[in-house]
Amino acid sequence: MSDLLVTGGRVLRPDMRIERADVLVDQDSGTIEAVGDGVGPADDELDAEGGLVIPGLVNAHTHVAMTLFRGYADDKPLDAWLQEDIWPVEAELQADDVAAGARLGIAEMIRSGTTAFADMYFFMPEVAEVVAETGMRAKLGHGSISVGKDDEAARADFREGLDFAREYDGSADGRVSTMFTPHSLTTVFEEHFETFVPEARDADVPIHFHANETTDEVDPIIEERDRRPLDWADDLGLLAEDSFIAHGVHVDDSEMALLAERDTAVVHCPASNMKLASGMAPVQELLDAGVTVGLGTDGAASNNDLDMFDEMRDAAMLGKLAADDASAVDAATTVRMATEGSAAALGLDSGRIEAGANADLAVVSLDAPRLTPHHDLVSHLAYAATGSDVRHTVCDGQVLMRDQKLTTIDEAAAREQAETRAQALVERAE
Amino acid sequence: MSDLLVTGGRVLRPDMRIERADVLVDQDSGTIEAVGDGVGPADDELDAEGGLVIPGLVNAHTHVAMTLFRGYADDKPLDAWLQEDIWPVEAELQADDVAAGARLGIAEMIRSGTTAFADMYFFMPEVAEVVAETGMRAKLGHGSISVGKDDEAARADFREGLDFAREYDGSADGRVSTMFTPHSLTTVFEEHFETFVPEARDADVPIHFHANETTDEVDPIIEERDRRPLDWADDLGLLAEDSFIAHGVHVDDSEMALLAERDTAVVHCPASNMKLASGMAPVQELLDAGVTVGLGTDGAASNNDLDMFDEMRDAAMLGKLAADDASAVDAATTVRMATEGSAAALGLDSGRIEAGANADLAVVSLDAPRLTPHHDLVSHLAYAATGSDVRHTVCDGQVLMRDQKLTTIDEAAAREQAETRAQALVERAE
Repeated sequence: MSDLLVTGGRVLRPDMRIERADVLVDQDSGTIEAVGDGVGPADDELDAEGGLVIPGLVNAHTHVAMTLFRGYADDKPLDAWLQEDIWPVEAELQADDVAAGARLGIAEMIRSGTTAFADMYFFMPEVAEVVAETGMRAKLGHGSISVGKDDEAARADFREGLDFAREYDGSADGRVSTMFTPHSLTTVFEEHFETFVPEARDADVPIHFHANETTDEVDPIIEERDRRPLDWADDLGLLAEDSFIAHGVHVDDSEMALLAERDTAVVHCPASNMKLASGMAPVQELLDAGVTVGLGTDGAASNNDLDMFDEMRDAAMLGKLAADDASAVDAATTVRMATEGSAAALGLDSGRIEAGANADLAVVSLDAPRLTPHHDLVSHLAYAATGSDVRHTVCDGQVLMRDQKLTTIDEAAAREQAETRAQALVERAE
Repeated sequence: MSDLLVTGGRVLRPDMRIERADVLVDQDSGTIEAVGDGVGPADDELDAEGGLVIPGLVNAHTHVAMTLFRGYADDKPLDAWLQEDIWPVEAELQADDVAAGARLGIAEMIRSGTTAFADMYFFMPEVAEVVAETGMRAKLGHGSISVGKDDEAARADFREGLDFAREYDGSADGRVSTMFTPHSLTTVFEEHFETFVPEARDADVPIHFHANETTDEVDPIIEERDRRPLDWADDLGLLAEDSFIAHGVHVDDSEMALLAERDTAVVHCPASNMKLASGMAPVQELLDAGVTVGLGTDGAASNNDLDMFDEMRDAAMLGKLAADDASAVDAATTVRMATEGSAAALGLDSGRIEAGANADLAVVSLDAPRLTPHHDLVSHLAYAATGSDVRHTVCDGQVLMRDQKLTTIDEAAAREQAETRAQALVERAE
């Protein structure tokens, strides 16, 4: 049995109070054993002197291997961006590309204090392997889609998604959990939802999909079916407590009430919604309606980073603009979305520094000029800190970054491999 | 005579091309002598190997000493925030507080690659002194206001502004220039504009003021005068080529045309506009109308950092949302706003890496996972880089940060002094 003491720091507690405390981690179970003064000693120590211990941030919606396309095609509307740029390069993706992109993205997330992420993409066994090797926690789904395929190919794609979910759930010593991820309400045909959603439910596989991201996606459903998209999604069995949607930008009151009733979380992706000019999600209204809201970066091609500190800042700021109220989506609410909210969306017992919870945490240095003075450290997390202020990252009780040095990834090699594969991929597609 | 060679890097040129080149700096004149291969040797070298040499960023609107209030009062509407929180602490400000806050803010700006800023605040001789001591470049104005004062006190305040502008212009070896800064169209009385604006014009003092930031500020002017605010400002003599406004969120077509005609620049402050829920400036429309647009962070209390990389990201993203068009305010446009645009607003010959221009530059490290792969480095500047990626900063030919170590500021002392003064200030005000 081994343990780890995070020592000398201040700690952000679940009620958003900040107190001087050490954190004792049981590395065998990967959980927090105790929080307080004099809770050590332990086999290993992590120096948090002068720093703030926070729950590891949870990136609740991304496509991690899209780090390969960071900066490849910016400043285009969603449709043109997907059809002219992203889908053509994605068609050239090989398993090793996805592994390289995932490793790069995970390096970036560990560096910026993220300890878990939800990923919907392709070649997911390779992503699961990289998650296993890097020590991260992840909820993984094979993105399945109907459009652009014949029925047989589409069914094979959904079958692959369900098979992956069943086979890999609980892998990487339990750090990998899985989900069934039909792409969206407009890119998956009704008959495929009708066949595969009940099968996912019977197998207790959670479901995650893109919903209500743009008006281009919402309006045709309303026109064709004379009902709101999420009302239809509910009939398809897509909304449940273990399921969560990405975006939820264009949702009306009835859909917010429905999400709250079904306990289906929304993962807000403010940077992506701005960059693709999708719109402003009514985050404060969603929260007021009782909906669980998490935060995600979306893929690096529409962000362009995977830094959850940037995402918190964007969420707090865009939330105010959406509500036309500078008191909306305050700092504490924002930090909660990136921790508890995202963890709840993914069904993880993470997102809080408390005995019994997963030992997923980060230590933020507080000595940068940009984090001075210390009137309110929760404000600093939401507005002024950046991923580069993170000093240590711990996931499942293991130290993944110590003094800004990654312990499970050869960063230079990961960067070089991603660079080489990204350039070759783009050349193949052009 | 001494010179400096920035060697081994790639360079962002004024046309937004990136080329391999060294940059030779004449430190005596503080200008760039040559850009190209084999332009050395020099007395001193700055290693830019693997990095990108960019023009120093220009923060064209801030209140730098407000770093003291970073995180002090968040998540409140503009009016309540000013009246309940900011003005009461500002009333307690002493000269040494402003010096400490300015030093902290300048440290933060140098760290994040900013080499010049426009500052409108109080105790400006002290700010000028800190600018002189730290090697930064700045355009400074004493913020003058009519509301809350009797006529005599108000006139003394405007007189102080004009006196400061005349006395300090060209100080700090020419790195300080000055401006006359009446606070805004709603906080300065007409008779004070009528007295002091012509005097400023006669003395060739540029004018900078807040305009059209919120509808609460625009609507009363329209109601009272039956004309748009900037139309009235033009009659007051406030719009001219050497003058610039901050914000310009709520401007109509006629005002955009007027700004273009008068060659009066707008400094866009996207983070502040979001955080205070002020609205979305029509940045792409302003640019299309031929208006010069710069970028500014505003004060740290409404941002909450002075990182121009954050500001570029915010500008690119909010600009798309404002235009309802993902192709608006693209990466190159955004980088131009933070460099050329801001420099033009302030009347500086900075913002471009070119022989003859001011030797104000920064070297950005490109080896972070968040900046991999290298499909498009201009995109990375706008979307993915953070101030923490800056490795060296040079202003007026002098190295202000080398390998992330500040050369003109004792950073630990500056942080401690700001922390102590900020806490004492808040205690006095409460």
